[in-house]
Parts: sequence; C-alpha cells; structure tokens
Amino acid sequence: MPVSAPQERGDAARNRELLLDAARRLIAERGADAISMDDIAAEAGVGKGTLFRRFGSRAGLMMVLLDEDERASQQAFLFGPPPLGPDAPPLERLLAFGRERLRFAHTHYPLLSEANRDPETRYGAPAAVQRTHVRLLLETAGTTGDLDIQADALLAMLDADYVHHQLTDMGETLESLGEKWESLARKLCGK
Amino acid sequence: MPVSAPQERGDAARNRELLLDAARRLIAERGADAISMDDIAAEAGVGKGTLFRRFGSRAGLMMVLLDEDERASQQAFLFGPPPLGPDAPPLERLLAFGRERLRFAHTHYPLLSEANRDPETRYGAPAAVQRTHVRLLLETAGTTGDLDIQADALLAMLDADYVHHQLTDMGETLESLGEKWESLARKLCGK
Repeated sequence: MPVSAPQERGDAARNRELLLDAARRLIAERGADAISMDDIAAEAGVGKGTLFRRFGSRAGLMMVLLDEDERASQQAFLFGPPPLGPDAPPLERLLAFGRERLRFAHTHYPLLSEANRDPETRYGAPAAVQRTHVRLLLETAGTTGDLDIQADALLAMLDADYVHHQLTDMGETLESLGEKWESLARKLCGK
Repeated sequence: MPVSAPQERGDAARNRELLLDAARRLIAERGADAISMDDIAAEAGVGKGTLFRRFGSRAGLMMVLLDEDERASQQAFLFGPPPLGPDAPPLERLLAFGRERLRFAHTHYPLLSEANRDPETRYGAPAAVQRTHVRLLLETAGTTGDLDIQADALLAMLDADYVHHQLTDMGETLESLGEKWESLARKLCGK
C-alpha cells in the first residue's frame, strides 16, 4: 500500500469545512459583496483568527470557493451523467454545457468577474479545460473549419462579465441566452 | 449661417494638440506603461500644470487618446474607402474589419485592457457602434440564425485581452489570428 500524503489534522479540516459552508450559505443569502470575514467567522462559530490562518484573506477564501465549484462543474461535464457527461451525443453535450455554464457564470458572477481582472486566472487552468472540452465536442460532432476559434467564440459567450452585461443591461434572461447560445452552437456544428 | 459653438482659445487648443502628439510619439517609442506625465510635458515643451489642467490625470489623457483613435477607426469602417468602407461587398468589409480591429486591439492593448476593467467602457459607445456594424454586415451578407450572438462572438475574438493572450501565450500572430477570424466569419456567413 502506498504511503498516504500527510492529512490535515481533524479539527483543522473540520474548521475549514465549517468556514466554507458558512461562506456559501451567506453568499447564497446576501450576495458575495455584502458579507465580511466577521460575518463568516460568526456564522461558522469559529474564531476570526482561524479564518484568516486558513485562507489568508477574503480574496483567498473566495478563490477557494470558486475553485471548488469549478472542480465540481468540471467533474460534471467530463465524467457526470448525460446530457452533460459522456453518455450523450456530442451536440447534446455541447448544448447542455452552454446552459450549465451560463448558470455558473450568473451565480458566480462576483468571483469570476474579479478573477477576470487578472489574465492569469482568466486564461488559467479551468478555462484551458473548458477550451479542450468544447474543442473536442466540436470535433466529435464533425464540425468543419478552424476549431480553436470556434471553441473560443462559444466560450466567450459564457464569460461572466458578458453574461452579466446581457442580463443586466440588454434585457436577456438565462433562458434567452441559452437559446442564442444553442443557435450559435448548432450553426457551427452544421446541425 | 448657424452660430458656431464656442471654440477653444487658440493657445489652449494648440497646447492640447502638442500634448496629444507628444504622448502618441512617446507611446509609439516606449509603450504606454513606460511613460510618465513628466515625460509627456517635457516632450511637448509644455508645463506639467497645463498637462494636468487639460486632461485631469494620466488616465484622463489616455482615455482621450483612445477615444480619438476609436473615432478615426469608426470613420474608416463606416465611411472610408473599400475594403473597410461601404463600396465593398459585406463579406469583404467584414473580413477587412476583423483584420483592422485585430491590429487596433494589438496597438492599443494597454489602454483597451485598462478600459476593459470597467464594464461601462467595455460595453460603452465604441463597442455598441461595432456591434451594430458587424450585425448589419452579417445581415446584408444573408447570414442565417441569431445575428446578435454571432456579432458578439465575432467581436469577442477582437477583444484586446483575448488578442494579447493569443499573441503572448498561444503562439499566434496578427496574421494567423486574421486567418482564424476569417474562417469563423466565412463559416457564419455560409461563404
């Protein structure tokens, strides 16, 4: 049996989960902008010192939350049940991916918008995984032409700042954006 | 004859042009990040106090420069000679627009990237004019499907941060990006 990696001590791991759960609850209730580190520590019943020791800063905590949700989203579109996951045809997966990521962009808008300010996170690991995924679905669906720019164009329409602008200033809804995205994806796939 | 609007006094207008020309020269030589307000005032032979009175701040001066170049670019694609302007067929105009705006995104990267940080400038007047223009060219070219999202997808591939990332991290050139953009535009227009 391989030697296991050093584990977090039980109470540290438990505090981490308490704090992340508390932050998620408060963000869902009030929005990310409205909550302070004090609020999160109080909600979790954990000292503020512990909160800062675990996550360094408010921005650090927010990045951990976003990272965990990105992993769950990746897990769903790479390995999850259909229509997102591998047991559905490529075009169906692509359309489900668009709708799923529109929702993700909307619910994670404050965190993603902040991450967008820094090109390293904007074009970082989650973006690269999504690019590979969409490009592969286009390819498997038999799409012609340059697939790199078609994947990038589809993904740009799921960008959090773009989605926010469409919802806030252009009178769109998640449903209408999903239909527009489907129209673009079908056109590129020739279906 | 209509009454003319109040004109800037001669010396104020002259100083404004001296300062803008000096700023353009220095940006072309050293890049926007490397120049200070002191450099610009010295290059123009104008006092630093005058520079700040005219433009308020470094950011103010940069926005004036960007705004003037955006107007010149708009003038060219709305009313200029072909292939950008109205005397060419719509697909040809669209392809010329893509190549022209890739160059614009590249040469104005620092200013546009800063403007992108603020959704009001990112989705402000120049972006709205470009959206209307591209949408109209798609329509005139007989493009099928939802034209809003196709125009937005094409424009997203001309975004300064995206272009910079492609040139800096992805091994693309303005020429190769122009070809990819052409491939996407032709596919959307069905040509």
